[in-house]
Amino acid sequence: MTISAVVLHSGGLDSSTLLYDIRRYHDKVHPLTINYGQRHEKETVNAYKIAIAAGMGHEWKLVDLSSLTAFLHGSALTSPDIPVSHGLYDDASMKSTVVPNRNMIFLSIAVGFAQSIGAKYVYTAVHSGDHLIYADCRPEFIYAVSNAAVLGTDNKVAIAAPYVYKDKTYIARLARKLAVPIEDTWSCYEGKSLHCGRCGTCVERIEAIYNAGFVDPTEYELGGYEYAIDLLTVAGKINESE
Amino acid sequence: MTISAVVLHSGGLDSSTLLYDIRRYHDKVHPLTINYGQRHEKETVNAYKIAIAAGMGHEWKLVDLSSLTAFLHGSALTSPDIPVSHGLYDDASMKSTVVPNRNMIFLSIAVGFAQSIGAKYVYTAVHSGDHLIYADCRPEFIYAVSNAAVLGTDNKVAIAAPYVYKDKTYIARLARKLAVPIEDTWSCYEGKSLHCGRCGTCVERIEAIYNAGFVDPTEYELGGYEYAIDLLTVAGKINESE
Repeated sequence: MTISAVVLHSGGLDSSTLLYDIRRYHDKVHPLTINYGQRHEKETVNAYKIAIAAGMGHEWKLVDLSSLTAFLHGSALTSPDIPVSHGLYDDASMKSTVVPNRNMIFLSIAVGFAQSIGAKYVYTAVHSGDHLIYADCRPEFIYAVSNAAVLGTDNKVAIAAPYVYKDKTYIARLARKLAVPIEDTWSCYEGKSLHCGRCGTCVERIEAIYNAGFVDPTEYELGGYEYAIDLLTVAGKINESE
Repeated sequence: MTISAVVLHSGGLDSSTLLYDIRRYHDKVHPLTINYGQRHEKETVNAYKIAIAAGMGHEWKLVDLSSLTAFLHGSALTSPDIPVSHGLYDDASMKSTVVPNRNMIFLSIAVGFAQSIGAKYVYTAVHSGDHLIYADCRPEFIYAVSNAAVLGTDNKVAIAAPYVYKDKTYIARLARKLAVPIEDTWSCYEGKSLHCGRCGTCVERIEAIYNAGFVDPTEYELGGYEYAIDLLTVAGKINESE
């Protein structure tokens, strides 16, 4: 019997690592990338690049949900007139990047796709660093939504979130161990040509790779990396002497 | 404080009745209609017509999810090459009309929209007649998905399904009582110019209105109504002497 899975794959560090991680335990992995009108739409190109590198280019699928921006208001990620906050990822200001019910929408579609192709599992790369700001990344939400998916599908498709109790440093270490092409993953919410190093998700990426103890292969905008390291040092989130 | 709600509104008898039902208890009702590439896309026109009749024309919204047909395979409702079964709504052959995880996808989007506009509730018109064929219409699914929605949204948006333990005859009676323009609602899966009277949902509609005890104002294709009444009589689902 073929064991196959659908993975929600943004093209970021976490979900790219997840692709490399679970391909070890599944016969077939289907990366599903969603365009939801995000400012950093370019992450979808990185997603495709990573899927090809992971040997899943043929299975990779892009779902166009950009029409939903008219219904899911108020997020800096989908509204050009709301700026992306700079600073720490767990700062309250990062609430501006919440897209209403995004994960439940994405997971529901992934579950429907899994049911369509006979896959039993949907994977998501949410991790513990997401919990504070994003309600739809917390363990209790993941359990509830998986329960709904099992009950709502004839194939009993379940949702797995193997990093939900892990932090991003764990994921960075795993990425390194699994030889994920980290430099080709995309995190930055700004979606410009280089990672800005200043937005919440850039700062979080820099923190994770720094604390994982290897040289960051990402190319940042001029001064961006230094901005993040200063901020993280002052906040006591990284140890300069490490 | 304004109490507002989002209603998943297909334009069928059940969700149209729901609009008229809950407008009695809410300050503002937002009907949300979804185009998911269904064969009977014309139901979305009926949905708009009903929303206007119910005084919610300005709030009515249409979401275009037709791109999802490429990901949610195998349903007669979205694949022109799979025929719609004729006969009883609870016949096993009606499984061909299951769209994988449809309700969870629709509910997730409605919950995201509710969160965006500050509405606390999302309503769905699933009823007991849906339970046998459609896993995503059963009470245990509704509880689970509502739980996920509450946990996944900052506003704690909940999902309500007031007819989940009622049958369609109850809904037809309520429609009559609330003066819903039943003739303008659309059920038929075929999506031709008139209701066919032969597909599962037409037969179910005819049964419900017949058993509710009033004259069916729907215009059916030639012979369709008689087909359904014969079938329902043989199956013992309606009582000719009533």
